Amino acid sequence: MASILPASNRPMRPDKNAYEGKRSVYVKNPYLDAMDEDILYHLDLGTKTHNLPAMFGDVKFVCVGGSPNRMKAFAQFMHKELQLEGDGEDIEDICAGTDRYCMFKTGPVLSISHGMGIPSISIMLHELIKLLHHARCCDVTIIRIGTSGGIGIAPGSVVITDTAVDSFFKPRFEQIVLDNVVTRSTELDKELAADLLSCSREIPNFPTLIGHTMCTYDFYEGQGRLDGALCSFSQEKKLDYLRRAHKAGVRNIEMESTVFAAMCGLCGLRAAVVCVTLLDRLESDQINLSHDVLVEYQQRPQLLISNFIKKQLGLCSQM
Amino acid sequence: MASILPASNRPMRPDKNAYEGKRSVYVKNPYLDAMDEDILYHLDLGTKTHNLPAMFGDVKFVCVGGSPNRMKAFAQFMHKELQLEGDGEDIEDICAGTDRYCMFKTGPVLSISHGMGIPSISIMLHELIKLLHHARCCDVTIIRIGTSGGIGIAPGSVVITDTAVDSFFKPRFEQIVLDNVVTRSTELDKELAADLLSCSREIPNFPTLIGHTMCTYDFYEGQGRLDGALCSFSQEKKLDYLRRAHKAGVRNIEMESTVFAAMCGLCGLRAAVVCVTLLDRLESDQINLSHDVLVEYQQRPQLLISNFIKKQLGLCSQM
Repeated sequence: MASILPASNRPMRPDKNAYEGKRSVYVKNPYLDAMDEDILYHLDLGTKTHNLPAMFGDVKFVCVGGSPNRMKAFAQFMHKELQLEGDGEDIEDICAGTDRYCMFKTGPVLSISHGMGIPSISIMLHELIKLLHHARCCDVTIIRIGTSGGIGIAPGSVVITDTAVDSFFKPRFEQIVLDNVVTRSTELDKELAADLLSCSREIPNFPTLIGHTMCTYDFYEGQGRLDGALCSFSQEKKLDYLRRAHKAGVRNIEMESTVFAAMCGLCGLRAAVVCVTLLDRLESDQINLSHDVLVEYQQRPQLLISNFIKKQLGLCSQM
Repeated sequence: MASILPASNRPMRPDKNAYEGKRSVYVKNPYLDAMDEDILYHLDLGTKTHNLPAMFGDVKFVCVGGSPNRMKAFAQFMHKELQLEGDGEDIEDICAGTDRYCMFKTGPVLSISHGMGIPSISIMLHELIKLLHHARCCDVTIIRIGTSGGIGIAPGSVVITDTAVDSFFKPRFEQIVLDNVVTRSTELDKELAADLLSCSREIPNFPTLIGHTMCTYDFYEGQGRLDGALCSFSQEKKLDYLRRAHKAGVRNIEMESTVFAAMCGLCGLRAAVVCVTLLDRLESDQINLSHDVLVEYQQRPQLLISNFIKKQLGLCSQM
């Protein structure tokens, strides 16, 4: 049984919130406010067709993840946890007019899918950040909850990212702007990561750690898998690469964290990445968990974030 | 009214097929055939759980595109065009067990969604190519049908890609393998592109051209848009970049073609990219077509590919 009290001494109720103070969402674009209309094409929303402040002005937490079904399940789970009216089963997809992403709102919590890979999450983040700006949201915390491959840790472990690194273990995101390469920081909010770790300590049997997360452009060759359609390296080279990653502090691998950290950092969003590992890449390449185990693992980041949000909203003083 | 005869003299019926001859799908992975089981995780298929040769052995055409709804609509359209039994409305998603991609089969035609961006299509292609290999398919043609931004051409134009180029207008795809950067060719099948152009000439009012397609990792800063959450360049710099792209032969911009060309080329798949343009990027950044016009534009690549497939199958001798 884990400790009942948070390991951290920081108060987590909103009246003494460590994150208090109006902190706006900053777009970094001098042209945006001069536009007559802003169409958020891939979200099927727009400034003329939707009253964005009325729809989203109260958002304080944004949770994003790759899979539409998982983000819908998270929204339904939050609906119950926040004790909102109704059973939440018929929760509406705000982006139903497009099949690029889906979006659900439960009280102050927005849940959005982002697909797989840096380009896919980047499109969503551009439009989400503009949405938060148009809606005049402030004090927004954004958390990516996802799945990942672990390195040297048991499957089912939850990794809270301190820093996202690229394939070369560097804490940077290389953004191509026109035909220039611009390097951006991938630091995440250390205080938020520490608070999430504290929160995890209160959940029984919930293996959680803080570590670096490596973000790649490719699931097979880029992550050293021997089971893709293309593979030109040996088992030894693969293991050497993964061991070097581990030595550099990498505990898990996924495909979105660097651009997520870079964009959220630039735009003033407190950001965290919380991913469960589905396998240990030092042991295998293929994910062959039973359906039930897979489902339970995938719920772990959701459970942690739901507990964290409830604490932030003062709904967990009994914990 | 367009010409009744194909502009090309090459016969297109299967008995005299220019593409005749057994051409296998080649995985380039020495480890694959030694695996006891291959789980195609993101397709929710596997060699032990599914009889892949029975399910897919007759596949000759694979059509891929970003949007699940559009690929379902294409499958339903092909069902009608191939005059298969039933109305095709209840067509089954073969990947229904996952929400990462969707897949539909109508006779010898497979229709699959790939999400947005290089990493997303790359995962799908690895697993699709392994599927075709396990199913012992041969003589497979693969065509990406998508949407794109045009450069200096009217919205609604269909661009058949001769060569995919990167953000620096180079015909290459840089694949990170472990922590090495490997450069791959992005040439596409010139004969297939020419045949598709011939085929387009037979459709009335169907503006089509062959040109280079630029593939970027980002929709906003990477494509010179002034309307993202982040923008650090001027209108002049944007236009200079797009004009240089045009001068280098680029006629449209999308986000998947380089890795698609590179992987299909390496694996012996005859490949083409056919995208409609939704706007002229020299004129604007936002897509603000009416719903009806958008739907009609998105159907253009589908119409062309359906006509091409019918000809290849000898179902169009009346044309």
